[in-house]
Amino acid sequence: MDVLVPFAASRPKTRLAGVLGPDERAEFAAAMRRDVCSAVDSAGGSPTVLSTDPIESAWPVVVDDRPLTEAVDDRLEPPVAVVMADLALATPEALSRLLGADGGVVLAPGLGGGTNAIVVRTPDFHVDYHGASIADHRRIAADVGTTTTVDSFRLAVDVDETDDLAEVLLHGEGQAARWLREAGLELEMTGGRVTVSRSARR
Amino acid sequence: MDVLVPFAASRPKTRLAGVLGPDERAEFAAAMRRDVCSAVDSAGGSPTVLSTDPIESAWPVVVDDRPLTEAVDDRLEPPVAVVMADLALATPEALSRLLGADGGVVLAPGLGGGTNAIVVRTPDFHVDYHGASIADHRRIAADVGTTTTVDSFRLAVDVDETDDLAEVLLHGEGQAARWLREAGLELEMTGGRVTVSRSARR
Repeated sequence: MDVLVPFAASRPKTRLAGVLGPDERAEFAAAMRRDVCSAVDSAGGSPTVLSTDPIESAWPVVVDDRPLTEAVDDRLEPPVAVVMADLALATPEALSRLLGADGGVVLAPGLGGGTNAIVVRTPDFHVDYHGASIADHRRIAADVGTTTTVDSFRLAVDVDETDDLAEVLLHGEGQAARWLREAGLELEMTGGRVTVSRSARR
Repeated sequence: MDVLVPFAASRPKTRLAGVLGPDERAEFAAAMRRDVCSAVDSAGGSPTVLSTDPIESAWPVVVDDRPLTEAVDDRLEPPVAVVMADLALATPEALSRLLGADGGVVLAPGLGGGTNAIVVRTPDFHVDYHGASIADHRRIAADVGTTTTVDSFRLAVDVDETDDLAEVLLHGEGQAARWLREAGLELEMTGGRVTVSRSARR
């Protein structure tokens, strides 16, 4: 199945500015994107990066600088999947569950109301990534056929905020996790959940 | 399978103090606990609440006021499962995947390094809930046999912080979600992930 991997190439991951500089954020975002494309490939999908700007990539790239919703919607010819480029915990197993799930529309929710992955097998679905998109996508999907939800922690964690980096250090198995370790990011215990700290800047 | 449901009965959920008063936090914690026990029951498990203090409950209760690790460890006679009482998104389906997963030890990671659910089928495993417990539990499990990890968003979200309430409003299907709605909690859109706000206090 064709799998679109949307990627924001200009000023990526600004919410990680507390621990990573601009060039580092770009490097880390690229590492996550490569991990996602590799995992999609291992799961039997054919990844195409849908990038806001030209990038170097071992995988096919199409460039579209429009907002995410429009750029994805124009390429939603079923069967097709959309998997975000910042799912640093995604494994071939998790993506196989996604791509193999039955249903006209398959949704994988993200933390905080996002929609981290979608499989579309019906021509009448459209995306809307604004706000709490998982609620909108459920509604749109309910109007056009059967909807399946994939219950996956690995697909639910998109890496946007500093705390998310703890999940990558704890559970990541790819280049992005290695990149963070080499950059000196470490788990830091707090009263509640674990977060990260940085002992050294390169 | 016997399923222990640890519950901190005294001053529960203090990190929700920004949006819920003390009595409300106790009510909400009880609603989550009931949802978890019902879901465990529907998944074919036999829930027993392991409470720090005496509570009223439709399910069996044992009281043990020691720290979590000791209280659980003393009751870890296999086969047995441990499912936290604040997994407000847990469904019978998610718990069936947990209870039905093969392996001497089955782990369901929580956000921020926690261990939200465990199945123990080997007598040599012990728990350690301090710090990033999922890393410790993986290590302990690796020493005693085969370990399986259940990849579930619904089991990964334990409700500790205000942002977690957004997950309950978005994905919850039980009493806890209803309780939040009736208390006037609503989704609030921010720049990134959705959180909650409260328009009215009862």
